[in-house]
Amino acid sequence: MSIAKMIAAHPDVAGNLNEPLALVVKHMMYCAAICTSCADACAAEEVDAMRRQCIRVCADCADVCDAAFKLATRRTGSNEALLQTMLRTCIEACIICADHCAMHEDDHCRRCAEMCRECAADCEKALATFQ
Amino acid sequence: MSIAKMIAAHPDVAGNLNEPLALVVKHMMYCAAICTSCADACAAEEVDAMRRQCIRVCADCADVCDAAFKLATRRTGSNEALLQTMLRTCIEACIICADHCAMHEDDHCRRCAEMCRECAADCEKALATFQ
Amino acid sequence: MSIAKMIAAHPDVAGNLNEPLALVVKHMMYCAAICTSCADACAAEEVDAMRRQCIRVCADCADVCDAAFKLATRRTGSNEALLQTMLRTCIEACIICADHCAMHEDDHCRRCAEMCRECAADCEKALATFQ
Amino acid sequence: MSIAKMIAAHPDVAGNLNEPLALVVKHMMYCAAICTSCADACAAEEVDAMRRQCIRVCADCADVCDAAFKLATRRTGSNEALLQTMLRTCIEACIICADHCAMHEDDHCRRCAEMCRECAADCEKALATFQ
Repeated sequence: MSIAKMIAAHPDVAGNLNEPLALVVKHMMYCAAICTSCADACAAEEVDAMRRQCIRVCADCADVCDAAFKLATRRTGSNEALLQTMLRTCIEACIICADHCAMHEDDHCRRCAEMCRECAADCEKALATFQ
Repeated sequence: MSIAKMIAAHPDVAGNLNEPLALVVKHMMYCAAICTSCADACAAEEVDAMRRQCIRVCADCADVCDAAFKLATRRTGSNEALLQTMLRTCIEACIICADHCAMHEDDHCRRCAEMCRECAADCEKALATFQ
Repeated sequence: MSIAKMIAAHPDVAGNLNEPLALVVKHMMYCAAICTSCADACAAEEVDAMRRQCIRVCADCADVCDAAFKLATRRTGSNEALLQTMLRTCIEACIICADHCAMHEDDHCRRCAEMCRECAADCEKALATFQ
Repeated sequence: MSIAKMIAAHPDVAGNLNEPLALVVKHMMYCAAICTSCADACAAEEVDAMRRQCIRVCADCADVCDAAFKLATRRTGSNEALLQTMLRTCIEACIICADHCAMHEDDHCRRCAEMCRECAADCEKALATFQ
């Protein structure tokens, strides 16, 4: 159960795996799941304006990470310009979400903020491979 | 069954519906569906390098439109900077997909190209409301 | 912009469109969007236990409809047993969501309940075409 | 980056984590990703009728696992009957996909079949916790 090994098995990759891109696929996948979970957990807390905003930015970040990780998984044909744009969009979504979750003290928001910052940093590393 | 009426029923919208934004939500939803269908139809055609690229750009465009339409649907809290970035990303995905589908003569690619161009134009109109 | 015309353009459909199946694709797509919107609108209301449950069943119904409509869109190859199971799962998700939303008086829940009942009825009609 | 620890941090879980359900969430998430990757890799192989069917069952399985894992992640409110139905639907999708991928000799299909069988077995274990 390894995303990197699965992508390496693609007929057009054939051993030439872009390691930072494979890593960010995995972390965007996890980030989509963690943000989905955080939005759900926030709805179970006392919901005031701050918490509503947290539900919003987590749900948005989950959707962006979900799309970004699917684009970054594909190796048939080529769509590099769009992939780079999507990685940048993902960085923006993750930083907004991390900054908001960091304002809450509960454990799920702390974990979500940490995941989002790690995901944003991995997107930067993946982007650097395209220069 | 109206996306615009549904968004207008949101407690924080209360009659102040951003019409171009409501319209693009609907068209991004349709564009995600049409691109999913076109990728599936292309896999049933004779698959050469051109067709593979069409499957790829349609699948990527479907994922981007899907995420973009969910972000644009939400009215709880506010995430405007990210929404604008996502609309721009959606324009890029749609134009890439439209340009490729326009090179094929089959009816599903023709319909997909048309949908993508309309969606990109609607994203521009929605973006203009944020200036 | 017609889901039915798009599916009819699939090379393996070639005019033999299953009309009730094409209709339910469209309504499951709308139902996924309306439920996503209702979950978001509920988070902007006063959130008590009833409202939390509404957010939950709407979010779950959105995910089920989203998967079901993608399965029902595809016409390459054949996956009929799974499609029938998914239509039945969609009926269950829609009825649960409709029953809960019907307990709330706000306009978005009323619209969501209506959409879910219509979607469940259309799934029944599509299922009948497989007998 | 642990799905189980994230779900354990939900305010309504508070230490009472359903371990088999947390494990299946992670494996359904991975299975959705692996099936998305396998559908993409199959489109890069020589595409005949067998390969088309593989693209179809992988794409369908990805969508079902994606919805199932999101439902199984949520702990706000309760939707247990639907969750059980969805786990059963996921088992069906995974077995169909595993059986088809097992007929191909390439590494990505072999990995996909293995993932799908593991996911189906984990769904069974999660279902057993509801009896």
